[in-house]
Amino acid sequence: MKHLLSIDDLGLAGIEEVIDLAESFLEVTQRDIPKVPALRGKTVATIFYEDSTRTRISFETAAKRLSADTMALSIATSSVSKGESLQDTVQTVEAMGVDAMVVRHRSAGVPHRIASWVDSAVINAGDGWHEHPTQALVDVFTLTRHRGRSLDGLRVAIVGDVQHSRVARSGVKALAMMGAHITLVGPPTMLPPNLEQWPVDVAYELDEVLPKVDVVYLLRIQQERQAEALFPTLREYTARYGLTAARLDRLAPDALVMHPGPMVRGVEIAPEVTDDPRAVVTEQVTNGVAVRMAALYLLIGSGAPVA
Amino acid sequence: MKHLLSIDDLGLAGIEEVIDLAESFLEVTQRDIPKVPALRGKTVATIFYEDSTRTRISFETAAKRLSADTMALSIATSSVSKGESLQDTVQTVEAMGVDAMVVRHRSAGVPHRIASWVDSAVINAGDGWHEHPTQALVDVFTLTRHRGRSLDGLRVAIVGDVQHSRVARSGVKALAMMGAHITLVGPPTMLPPNLEQWPVDVAYELDEVLPKVDVVYLLRIQQERQAEALFPTLREYTARYGLTAARLDRLAPDALVMHPGPMVRGVEIAPEVTDDPRAVVTEQVTNGVAVRMAALYLLIGSGAPVA
Amino acid sequence: MKHLLSIDDLGLAGIEEVIDLAESFLEVTQRDIPKVPALRGKTVATIFYEDSTRTRISFETAAKRLSADTMALSIATSSVSKGESLQDTVQTVEAMGVDAMVVRHRSAGVPHRIASWVDSAVINAGDGWHEHPTQALVDVFTLTRHRGRSLDGLRVAIVGDVQHSRVARSGVKALAMMGAHITLVGPPTMLPPNLEQWPVDVAYELDEVLPKVDVVYLLRIQQERQAEALFPTLREYTARYGLTAARLDRLAPDALVMHPGPMVRGVEIAPEVTDDPRAVVTEQVTNGVAVRMAALYLLIGSGAPVA
Repeated sequence: MKHLLSIDDLGLAGIEEVIDLAESFLEVTQRDIPKVPALRGKTVATIFYEDSTRTRISFETAAKRLSADTMALSIATSSVSKGESLQDTVQTVEAMGVDAMVVRHRSAGVPHRIASWVDSAVINAGDGWHEHPTQALVDVFTLTRHRGRSLDGLRVAIVGDVQHSRVARSGVKALAMMGAHITLVGPPTMLPPNLEQWPVDVAYELDEVLPKVDVVYLLRIQQERQAEALFPTLREYTARYGLTAARLDRLAPDALVMHPGPMVRGVEIAPEVTDDPRAVVTEQVTNGVAVRMAALYLLIGSGAPVA
Repeated sequence: MKHLLSIDDLGLAGIEEVIDLAESFLEVTQRDIPKVPALRGKTVATIFYEDSTRTRISFETAAKRLSADTMALSIATSSVSKGESLQDTVQTVEAMGVDAMVVRHRSAGVPHRIASWVDSAVINAGDGWHEHPTQALVDVFTLTRHRGRSLDGLRVAIVGDVQHSRVARSGVKALAMMGAHITLVGPPTMLPPNLEQWPVDVAYELDEVLPKVDVVYLLRIQQERQAEALFPTLREYTARYGLTAARLDRLAPDALVMHPGPMVRGVEIAPEVTDDPRAVVTEQVTNGVAVRMAALYLLIGSGAPVA
Repeated sequence: MKHLLSIDDLGLAGIEEVIDLAESFLEVTQRDIPKVPALRGKTVATIFYEDSTRTRISFETAAKRLSADTMALSIATSSVSKGESLQDTVQTVEAMGVDAMVVRHRSAGVPHRIASWVDSAVINAGDGWHEHPTQALVDVFTLTRHRGRSLDGLRVAIVGDVQHSRVARSGVKALAMMGAHITLVGPPTMLPPNLEQWPVDVAYELDEVLPKVDVVYLLRIQQERQAEALFPTLREYTARYGLTAARLDRLAPDALVMHPGPMVRGVEIAPEVTDDPRAVVTEQVTNGVAVRMAALYLLIGSGAPVA
């Protein structure tokens, strides 16, 4: 594996390899000194054309725990504003001696194009509405920690603005490969138009779905985008699709509630829901570091043992 | 000690413990290789909701000299703008594996609330007009370096906008615990309304106070706040309360001039005053790193020797 | 050598010392673990009053490969906005324990003034239109890698807005010291008024110059500055002075094309030109890290072997 651009590239075997490694690295992160020398001397650059403190520091923490050096480029304040092309920017970064580039961009396909220009490993940290493969790996890994290595037949509802969600696109692919049964839930304006091409069922009423699933995966309502154009008001969205305390009662006692963060409490999730033991949002964050350690190790590790 | 939120929490015993450790760490910072492995494998996050390059790099330098990793969150550019709550932000940061959080916020009490939400150690790096305890520790430590461990009876004048100064609030507490005698000096509009609850004397004329004190502590006039609302003009403020070269002559030959920085030369302090040997502003900065090393070591060190 | 402020300070002997060291460090950067402990325990601060991600990360990478710690100050967001003077800012940074300061400022002479205020080593990373000495060292080093240690009689054309270019000013000095023969090429509005004081020839037609030189050095057209005031339109500039594919044919087969970056493709350089084997722009970036390692090592290394 040279790059991590999409769940398709990875395939089921790739997903399972990441999960195995993430188990080992999760143990590393719980040690007194949560570091291993696996990537000593390597440099990981985060190149973010769209801001995301959360994802950036997850990758940076993963790199540091593997003893790699990090280099952060927030492109809002960079040479791009001086007229430099995307290609020149990434080739310049590479020429300084970078082993892996973690790229986020508002346009689908940019990490793929970058991968065609550089010899470094490229990790897609989110491209437009397209993919966010490490988030899907975090989510699948989190589920295996609770349900064991087989997700065969696991019933997962993904709720919200699926159409504009790279998290949902990568998540559906990874969950389907692992054998889960997926139901997308949301108003028609938020579901993708070509649903017949997705390996999913569709539902429009969250209340009907909740009693029948093992996992509810809530997507963030992106207020900075066009939420209001897709639904009359946020309040009405919450009334029909928000996971309220009342709705939580409809969920099986051993079900799980997941969210990729950042959560907008009071919109897609009620404040009290995150305190429910079924909510594993914080675990997802912790697992995120271990999964990103696994991805970096697979791409640029020398194959030495994890340690 | 789990957190460092206010001088009250710390108490006199705590202050003295920090001073003892800071002595050792000051010696470390003067070595050829000014680092010790005391916090190897630990991660210190700076979470600043209000910008302060000076305080942030002082803490980061302290963390690095203890061999800790650092993670910087400048919240202006973070997920908060995506609707995430303060609680979710800090719990997310913690879930990535952080041992100490250094927090600055424009509202009083925020670091205390954060401390109630996380298991990490929390250091208050300034909350509104409330407290800035590490600055007070730096100042007390700097005084002990010049006057010996007892500050009993030391006469300190704190000059300027005390009412809007967290530095003054923490400073008065720490100095009073150490036995110093404090006089607040400034126009009535800049002094706190409930003065009878403060362990201080009050004076309105700097010229009268200067010959009688061992230390003049100048507060920054915060032009970005409401300075002009509190005083007719900056020029008039300087005329009555600025430490000019002429006023410096009224000060005892062995007195000290202190300032927490950043200084606004020409307003609260004349340019030539900082070159006077009685001015120890630069020492305060150097001591700042040693004191912050002491605070981090006390909160998250394993108790191993300083080295 | 205490500071690196201008090529004049350095002199020919200094340039040759940097080139020798850069050879060694280039070899270091190509190792599996491209790090040496030469500056362990040292701290390098980048203090940028003008943004330049490219130059900043080149210096930071150089510092990290030498095992130094780094501290980044982007002054747009710092205490300066609180009224602090330049002198107080740099003395504060120094007091925290900094060994070298890498300074960029929009005004000529600022790094020199800073050097008069601090004991740390100061590296000029670009001051106004004045100097950018490490870029000149990178360019000279890159040429010696292709042409051997003597540049005696090498014919170099520097093309573009020389008048507003610190890269050109430092470059002309370094190339002239090394014995190269320099021709400035551009419209009269972009050439300096006191040309008789420069050790150069002048030409106004790029087409005539190209067949006669060994190196074409293209300057970036700074669209954010006054490009349009100096030339009717960017298109006309490109028509006369842009290095197009057609013009490339006029260049000798073993000539070199250089650019300090960031390139504005389609203005001073055609997109296809950078793929020509004569273009060594990416090599300049790689060499930049080695040259900056050499500069840091010379200024603050303890004289221990490179390793």
